Amino acid sequence: MKPLKVALLGCGVVGSQVIRLLHEQRDDLAARVGAPLELAGVAVRRLGRKRDVEVDPGLLTTDAESLVTRDDVDIVVEVIGGIEPARSLITAALNRGKSVVTANKALLAEDGASLYEAARSGSGDLYFEASVAGAIPLLRPLRESLAGDRVNRVLGIVNGTTNYILDKMDSTGASFTDALEEAQTLGYAEADPTADVEGFDAAAKAAILAGLAFHSRVTADQVHREGITEITATDVASAKAMGYVIKLLAICARSDDGRSIGVRVHPAMIPRSHPLAGVREAYNAVFVEAESAGQLMFYGKGAGGAPTASAVLGDLVAVGRNRLAGARGPEESTYASLRVHPMGETVTRCHVALDVADKPGVLARVAELFAKHDVSIQTVRQEGHGDDAQLVIVTHRASDAALSATMEGLRELDIVRAIASVMRVEGDE
Amino acid sequence: MKPLKVALLGCGVVGSQVIRLLHEQRDDLAARVGAPLELAGVAVRRLGRKRDVEVDPGLLTTDAESLVTRDDVDIVVEVIGGIEPARSLITAALNRGKSVVTANKALLAEDGASLYEAARSGSGDLYFEASVAGAIPLLRPLRESLAGDRVNRVLGIVNGTTNYILDKMDSTGASFTDALEEAQTLGYAEADPTADVEGFDAAAKAAILAGLAFHSRVTADQVHREGITEITATDVASAKAMGYVIKLLAICARSDDGRSIGVRVHPAMIPRSHPLAGVREAYNAVFVEAESAGQLMFYGKGAGGAPTASAVLGDLVAVGRNRLAGARGPEESTYASLRVHPMGETVTRCHVALDVADKPGVLARVAELFAKHDVSIQTVRQEGHGDDAQLVIVTHRASDAALSATMEGLRELDIVRAIASVMRVEGDE
Repeated sequence: MKPLKVALLGCGVVGSQVIRLLHEQRDDLAARVGAPLELAGVAVRRLGRKRDVEVDPGLLTTDAESLVTRDDVDIVVEVIGGIEPARSLITAALNRGKSVVTANKALLAEDGASLYEAARSGSGDLYFEASVAGAIPLLRPLRESLAGDRVNRVLGIVNGTTNYILDKMDSTGASFTDALEEAQTLGYAEADPTADVEGFDAAAKAAILAGLAFHSRVTADQVHREGITEITATDVASAKAMGYVIKLLAICARSDDGRSIGVRVHPAMIPRSHPLAGVREAYNAVFVEAESAGQLMFYGKGAGGAPTASAVLGDLVAVGRNRLAGARGPEESTYASLRVHPMGETVTRCHVALDVADKPGVLARVAELFAKHDVSIQTVRQEGHGDDAQLVIVTHRASDAALSATMEGLRELDIVRAIASVMRVEGDE
Repeated sequence: MKPLKVALLGCGVVGSQVIRLLHEQRDDLAARVGAPLELAGVAVRRLGRKRDVEVDPGLLTTDAESLVTRDDVDIVVEVIGGIEPARSLITAALNRGKSVVTANKALLAEDGASLYEAARSGSGDLYFEASVAGAIPLLRPLRESLAGDRVNRVLGIVNGTTNYILDKMDSTGASFTDALEEAQTLGYAEADPTADVEGFDAAAKAAILAGLAFHSRVTADQVHREGITEITATDVASAKAMGYVIKLLAICARSDDGRSIGVRVHPAMIPRSHPLAGVREAYNAVFVEAESAGQLMFYGKGAGGAPTASAVLGDLVAVGRNRLAGARGPEESTYASLRVHPMGETVTRCHVALDVADKPGVLARVAELFAKHDVSIQTVRQEGHGDDAQLVIVTHRASDAALSATMEGLRELDIVRAIASVMRVEGDE
């Protein structure tokens, strides 16, 4: 059987695992695809560099442009990341009728539509399971298994670095800075951790998930994004005291009237009894709520060379089968064109701790302010005395705009000395 | 766009939900498939019966044979269950080039190969996501997402009825009989609960999972099967005392040398810290361990009309897209042809509680017997005194044959009054 030729862009942590597995699982892959998968070339930045895997030097090239358009190449695997040159290379390959497998969440979340369009015009496939939640089969289930259902919410932990940091803060009481340093030492966080800790990585994944779940076009800049850099050991401890744990969540949800969707990434308190609360270290887990299926959960390793390569190879097999059959996988599905609403319209619950003056009538004035903004209080607890007096309030569901206005109002109340902490609450009620 | 015509076999719990959703999600389904899905007919046993859903009486027929071979029918959905007439009807449909979506685990586990063959000869699709774990996307991830990986183990709770019963026994201390009765009252167990409580249902699912995971042909009669009818409140309590919980598990595992697979369904003790231990009531959850992906978990509702219908509709969309594209989904993949080894070759750990005479040298003689059969002991605990003396032993991994021989030997030891309980241990070490 004539082999399918694979061009690989990038030979780093993921790329080197892809090469290893293409070699080690050669016979299995050939049997599953129906033809051998053969490496046609590997585009790298520098030729001389030491690599994690043995590569035939004759396959290495710094000329990625020529590689992706070579006539004998059937499939291009892109694992270099970032917007350029990835976008130009993928587009060139798709325009020439190649199929593309990519792990590039940033590019998909910024400009997925134009990639889909190039795939359609060239009649190739665009697969990207590895772009979200690493080895966890999540995009194919959303795109295909749940294609007959109505998804209402996707809620999950999709960034391993921040989950590792928050888990350490929760289990050891460490500060954000110390936990980040430990994550960097262990290789869970990069030297420049911005993309992870500021939520950019999770926001790109949220955009991809929302697009697939709601059959609408969603880009990263439509995702409300807050990172975890301002979470203090005190926030973590006070969540713990209340039976909650803080996680960085990606949440894509249909509005109550079903006509729009909210897509957001921010830290939130969830009850310790919630299954996501038990997701430790750098693991990922995603809840999907669909009308007929009910609640589904997917759990596993969200990053790392081998897990990500597993997802890439799964896509390679699918794309290879499609090429042999002269078929194509699912295309972009954006027929629903739901509006992405701004954060103010998103409905959430909120936990707020207020340092207050310890005198009669404080609770009444605070409660009045919440009522004025139509925010209903679920529980309120008074802690400490005198200068240490604190009111801890958890609200019922309210629009983020109303909650923000309430916080503004609290800041102006003379009896409120400071807002010690504010955090959204998810996963119950 | 010309509609795709769907013939539905069966209008019970699942069938009526399929009809409802085809109607309610009509526009979404049409957009996702690329053409409307239109009900061509519904085969039922009796015409006059009251149903859970409104059906155009003109669509109802008792003549399933004619319906499945009608020229205008594109896709047949089979939700009647059982071997016949399901097998003949599905085969007739596939031979005529129709695609088939089925939830029939018993038939697939008995004779999947001949159905695949009929699908191949007729060039139609055979999809069956709903046959295992209801709404949980599990078969598509195994068949497609993990197609580039090497699966080593699938371990899960795939029968909601028995999980409900064991969960009740664990949380309330109820006997098996009382918990079963409660499950029947609530509709979680059928009047004749044999298929569930004796493990037949889980065994069929295990055969399907093993076939997909290991690219080999596995039938239900090759699955080692033990039910839960002999589990006592005492077993449950003593597991609890040790920090374990008893679950009915389906386990498909590659042997240590990789050359054969073991497929089994039996109750087992798992540590309370294991994620499967937290699966309550009638929920299902499945762990998949793959070489590169690591541990993955899938969790959700494993049964019920709407969840099962969600899986059926997901398959309907996939099959519909394939027909419009003139393509076919994945075929049977049995190239690995791994041998299914007998239970004796399976390696497990074991928990055994022995009523023993309380005199010096008892432990030495018991330990000697284990050593004679090459079974290594991990922990041993002596409980009670005099007539109540009990030895509780947990072994390291050993072949089931060696463990059985050890139990035989223990029965013959004069110092052992009785084997109070024996159960396999999974999920740690």
